[in-house]
Amino acid sequence: MKKLLTGSLAAIALAVSVQAAAQVDPEDQIYYRKAGYAFMAWNVGKIKGMLENESTWNLEQVQAAANSIAATANSGMGALFSPGTEKSIGDTKTRVKPEMFQDAEGVNKVGMAFHKAATELKAAADAGDKTQITTAFSDLGASCKGCHDNYRMK
Amino acid sequence: MKKLLTGSLAAIALAVSVQAAAQVDPEDQIYYRKAGYAFMAWNVGKIKGMLENESTWNLEQVQAAANSIAATANSGMGALFSPGTEKSIGDTKTRVKPEMFQDAEGVNKVGMAFHKAATELKAAADAGDKTQITTAFSDLGASCKGCHDNYRMK
Repeated sequence: MKKLLTGSLAAIALAVSVQAAAQVDPEDQIYYRKAGYAFMAWNVGKIKGMLENESTWNLEQVQAAANSIAATANSGMGALFSPGTEKSIGDTKTRVKPEMFQDAEGVNKVGMAFHKAATELKAAADAGDKTQITTAFSDLGASCKGCHDNYRMK
Repeated sequence: MKKLLTGSLAAIALAVSVQAAAQVDPEDQIYYRKAGYAFMAWNVGKIKGMLENESTWNLEQVQAAANSIAATANSGMGALFSPGTEKSIGDTKTRVKPEMFQDAEGVNKVGMAFHKAATELKAAADAGDKTQITTAFSDLGASCKGCHDNYRMK
């Protein structure tokens, strides 16, 4: 992971030390990163549902979901993409493409967009501005897609 | 879930509306709640490792992990324990005990302890006080155990 990322994303990724990463074996790294993305998907789904159905809008729920997404995005998940996690290990499946471990510049770009979008969605939710939340949520979706399109198998 | 909880925990759980909960089918509820607990386990493991090995101590990592744990704990996971999620559904396994759906008072108690401990751990991490972090982390572990002992199969 150290070699994979450059610039600001590297600073974020390195916030999780090499030692800490080394304590988690490759199979567990895949397990934990999938858990992080799955839990974000639940929170994204809640906000999506509330944006699509006005009668269910609840700012406190949006704030809790946005806070969870931002905290997950900024928890140092880069440490869960160490060498040895490029493909499924036994029953622990991953849809990551090998390209993710070969395209430092591209990964840096989508990673930065994701961190920025998650942080901005939390800020918009905390501000309580629905228009700002709608824009930030759309940007978050685009940032997820940026990674999925390039680095995740269908 | 509405009937399961009382008092302050009910207020937290109800932050996720019945409508939002209803949008997630029981199998997905089990999947998402397991993801949330798994991702917390990763973050708990990071803090544990840093507390046990002085040379790996990194306050920013502790703060990121504590923030993620608190955000997950306060994301409204109560909505992921709706009726129909008392046992495994197909390949989506759960170790929850039926007692969790029958002991409102006990669940309220362990739930409150968990939310309090997660919130206090984040506060201790934000304050940067290692002694306070150590105590709060121990309290968090006890609150996890409180639920596991009573409501999760071994």
